[in-house]
Amino acid sequence: MTQYTISDYLLDVIKTLGADQILGVPGDYNLQFLDHITQRSDMKWVGNANELNASYMADGYAREKGFATFVTTFGVGELSAINGLAGSVAEHVPVLEIVGAPTAAVQNDGKLVHHTFGDQNFTRFIEAHAALDLKVTVLTADNAISQINETLAYMAATKEPAYLVLPTDLVDLPANPLLKEQIPAVFNQTTIDVSATLQAVQAALTASKKPVMIVGHEVDRFNLGSAIKDFSLKNNIPVLDLGLGKGAVDESFSNFVGTYNGTISESAVNAFVDQADTVLLVGAKLTDSVTGGFTQQFTPSQVINLDSQNASIFGQAITTEYDFQTLGAALADLDLNLALPAVQAPQLDASLAPSDQALTQEFYYQALQSFMTADKTFVAEQGTSFFGLASQKLTTGTKFIGQPLWGSIGYAFPAALGSQLANPARRTVLSTGEGSLQLTIQDFGLAFKEGLKPVIFIIDNTGYTVERVIHGMEEPYNDVPQYRYDLIPAAFGADEDQYTFTAVSTEAELMAAMAQADQTPDKMVIIQANMGMKDAPAQLLETALRFEAQNH
Amino acid sequence: MTQYTISDYLLDVIKTLGADQILGVPGDYNLQFLDHITQRSDMKWVGNANELNASYMADGYAREKGFATFVTTFGVGELSAINGLAGSVAEHVPVLEIVGAPTAAVQNDGKLVHHTFGDQNFTRFIEAHAALDLKVTVLTADNAISQINETLAYMAATKEPAYLVLPTDLVDLPANPLLKEQIPAVFNQTTIDVSATLQAVQAALTASKKPVMIVGHEVDRFNLGSAIKDFSLKNNIPVLDLGLGKGAVDESFSNFVGTYNGTISESAVNAFVDQADTVLLVGAKLTDSVTGGFTQQFTPSQVINLDSQNASIFGQAITTEYDFQTLGAALADLDLNLALPAVQAPQLDASLAPSDQALTQEFYYQALQSFMTADKTFVAEQGTSFFGLASQKLTTGTKFIGQPLWGSIGYAFPAALGSQLANPARRTVLSTGEGSLQLTIQDFGLAFKEGLKPVIFIIDNTGYTVERVIHGMEEPYNDVPQYRYDLIPAAFGADEDQYTFTAVSTEAELMAAMAQADQTPDKMVIIQANMGMKDAPAQLLETALRFEAQNH
Repeated sequence: MTQYTISDYLLDVIKTLGADQILGVPGDYNLQFLDHITQRSDMKWVGNANELNASYMADGYAREKGFATFVTTFGVGELSAINGLAGSVAEHVPVLEIVGAPTAAVQNDGKLVHHTFGDQNFTRFIEAHAALDLKVTVLTADNAISQINETLAYMAATKEPAYLVLPTDLVDLPANPLLKEQIPAVFNQTTIDVSATLQAVQAALTASKKPVMIVGHEVDRFNLGSAIKDFSLKNNIPVLDLGLGKGAVDESFSNFVGTYNGTISESAVNAFVDQADTVLLVGAKLTDSVTGGFTQQFTPSQVINLDSQNASIFGQAITTEYDFQTLGAALADLDLNLALPAVQAPQLDASLAPSDQALTQEFYYQALQSFMTADKTFVAEQGTSFFGLASQKLTTGTKFIGQPLWGSIGYAFPAALGSQLANPARRTVLSTGEGSLQLTIQDFGLAFKEGLKPVIFIIDNTGYTVERVIHGMEEPYNDVPQYRYDLIPAAFGADEDQYTFTAVSTEAELMAAMAQADQTPDKMVIIQANMGMKDAPAQLLETALRFEAQNH
Repeated sequence: MTQYTISDYLLDVIKTLGADQILGVPGDYNLQFLDHITQRSDMKWVGNANELNASYMADGYAREKGFATFVTTFGVGELSAINGLAGSVAEHVPVLEIVGAPTAAVQNDGKLVHHTFGDQNFTRFIEAHAALDLKVTVLTADNAISQINETLAYMAATKEPAYLVLPTDLVDLPANPLLKEQIPAVFNQTTIDVSATLQAVQAALTASKKPVMIVGHEVDRFNLGSAIKDFSLKNNIPVLDLGLGKGAVDESFSNFVGTYNGTISESAVNAFVDQADTVLLVGAKLTDSVTGGFTQQFTPSQVINLDSQNASIFGQAITTEYDFQTLGAALADLDLNLALPAVQAPQLDASLAPSDQALTQEFYYQALQSFMTADKTFVAEQGTSFFGLASQKLTTGTKFIGQPLWGSIGYAFPAALGSQLANPARRTVLSTGEGSLQLTIQDFGLAFKEGLKPVIFIIDNTGYTVERVIHGMEEPYNDVPQYRYDLIPAAFGADEDQYTFTAVSTEAELMAAMAQADQTPDKMVIIQANMGMKDAPAQLLETALRFEAQNH
């Protein structure tokens, strides 16, 4: 048996947290570490075409599986990935980046090595990451095990991302193999007594005549969806989610009202919030893209807010002991005795009558809604796709991934691949636009190499429509080159039997292509949806007006 | 006539510095600024497929034309580009990034807008950039003009990159149109009297029996190549360049000896340095990738060093007035009266006898050397291509672009496009590998949209050969998906008459393809060069051994 090392221990902890595929890009400061991955039978290295794609893909993987890891190399690799990792910070996704770095000897000698500025400074990139409010750990020979434990326990407790620098001279440092058996103890958390805080929340809610609950992304990250559902059912409190956190609670349960988006929400949805006297925000952040541009009309004096960072009641910070996960879980059993009437959630108009008319954005998103099933995860790019899909109700078991706060164009395609890789038993359905897809398109190569079989809708409407409706409708900067999506799979190495490609221009063609997709689970299905350049979802048009105004 | 604005003034200054194509990616915090570009008849917006590509392409553009500008949006865009901009810092390339940012009102109100962490903090990304030793300027309403002047004058004087944040509320702020006439005065520099320093250098050199000069990248950036040449000819001092700065001095002039790479240089080249008693380093940095892994055998007590940051003689810092550009230019007229014999530069073995044998790396780089002409710029990816090409002698007028210090994989393709865009009268010749090309491949779309016509060699040898020879020769992490390069152009939107594609596997096929390329100046020429997985240039194999050792 070969020596058990720090690297092996790190990988064992990662495996315990749920990641058994490791993403990233090789570089000469991480190659020795990668050996420890490829030598294991219980883990797989999945190499990306570039580091930004790796970071996005890890984010999608973590949203599906609760944890992800990717590996980069010093300087060039980590900086290429920093935008993706920043997205994981912004949207609270537990992604671990491991950065291979020069040895302590090279650093101490101030050598002018490649992947530096040749200025003997080896801390610049660490500082750049620290500026992003990110958990930063630089492993040292003396404390590597405790640093690994501390970093990974932090991630498990907070669901936040982290950045871990691994100098190459530590990669093969021996570790005690008995440590492996003690890994569960790494994640033992101290119990927080939230009873006083829970009582305060209960007292505040008991005074309410018409409460409503709006949940956000942290409910998903801390896995509190079923506690919220139980609490709602016990007390007849209507539940909405935000686009940032869409699907955090089961959207098909009886008390779910809809996805809130400020005053531009569908009126029947908005009415629940407008008429409420008390708004219980759980794990939610009221950002511009998910409030119709800050159009929510409740005031802090009406809000009970519980999130991972803060808790407050009607504008007053809670000072008693508090832990978001503990308190959220405790809600499941909280009976307020409010005697509220049963929730009358708005009913979906499920009728969909496809014609031979040219495909519109309006029809397209309704059609995607009809395509939802319990075993699918929908990933929406933060262009027209997000705004169009966020207002559609998810059916039982359908998951949803979007990135409305960070909103990094190009995120959705690698994130979809990450979601699909993490959970092959589900099928990932991506809706993106050709403007967005171009940023990260090269991981089609990875997708075919790994045999991934998502359904990919590419909206082809000659450019950045989400930007056009904000500013510059006809301006050339919103044009993009016209790719040939029918050729993309083969160009990126697909065998003919690995995929199908269909272009659709009418409602009926779209419906037929979707039916065909469901009958083709063993291939990647690519559907190019041709739509008008200026056509956009209604909620995007409303939001865009407010974004444009906000820029003056 | 429309109002003259701060944006117009900024663009006028940029134009004065030589950039008339502006690269980047649109985003809703920069769209209004882009209007000022598209409305001009003397400038063109060239939209990239993603921000990292934009930053690399700007770097290539600046190396060809002396200055470049690209535009990104707040948070997501600027962080996607930060690795490319860091490369411009490392390798001293004057690239200006303009970042569109939220308004002062949005920032002061602490709004939870998209492209932030939703935490009311708007300075994180500025801090991340500041960590990279980068000139950082955040424009303010009160001081925008002087801030623009100060930033651009800094770039003109130092040839360093800079990062400029432009909040959207400043974009259309009026400016005095008369400012435009005063732009030349912005770049007036105070004269530095370097005569005392020059005398000290002269005294040190006069004592030398066998001096040699090694020049680096800063000689290129400060345009000192002809001064170095004059100085060498006047005094019979042999000249070498480093891979980091290859071509900074005309490699075809009589006193040019070769490209130095420590003890792994060709022996006739190395002999000049080994036998020298004094080494005059000009604008050079002795980094691992360009010294055969720190194998240079001279000591500080033999070195006179003149670069943009420091000047020293035999290990003693110079304390008299000093400015690199002024001193470098003054060398042209410096006659040392050393009475040295004429330089006997090693002669190139120009014989090249192509056979039907399988193509090897050794033959390939010799063949590329024979393909050099005065109107070509060669761009070498930092894999096998760089190590193979750096040891070839450039012919008269041939330029060379590489990135051996920062060494960011994927850089060369966008950099080549930037070089070609900047100077259509020259032809850019890219040598890259399929492992590298995948990282940034999507700007084939831009290349065809803009009608660029470089010659692109793609070495297809099933993966990251530069990594294989360092570590993990047969490891799966060094494999990459097998793209179909014949389909790539059409997939990215090329018309059939815009390009030619040829795959070559033998020496004779390569020579024929090169001849054909020269006869096809009106199209992009793509040549896939098939070579063995483990075949690598000799100097790379030597360097790789030292890199691997350095990682333990």
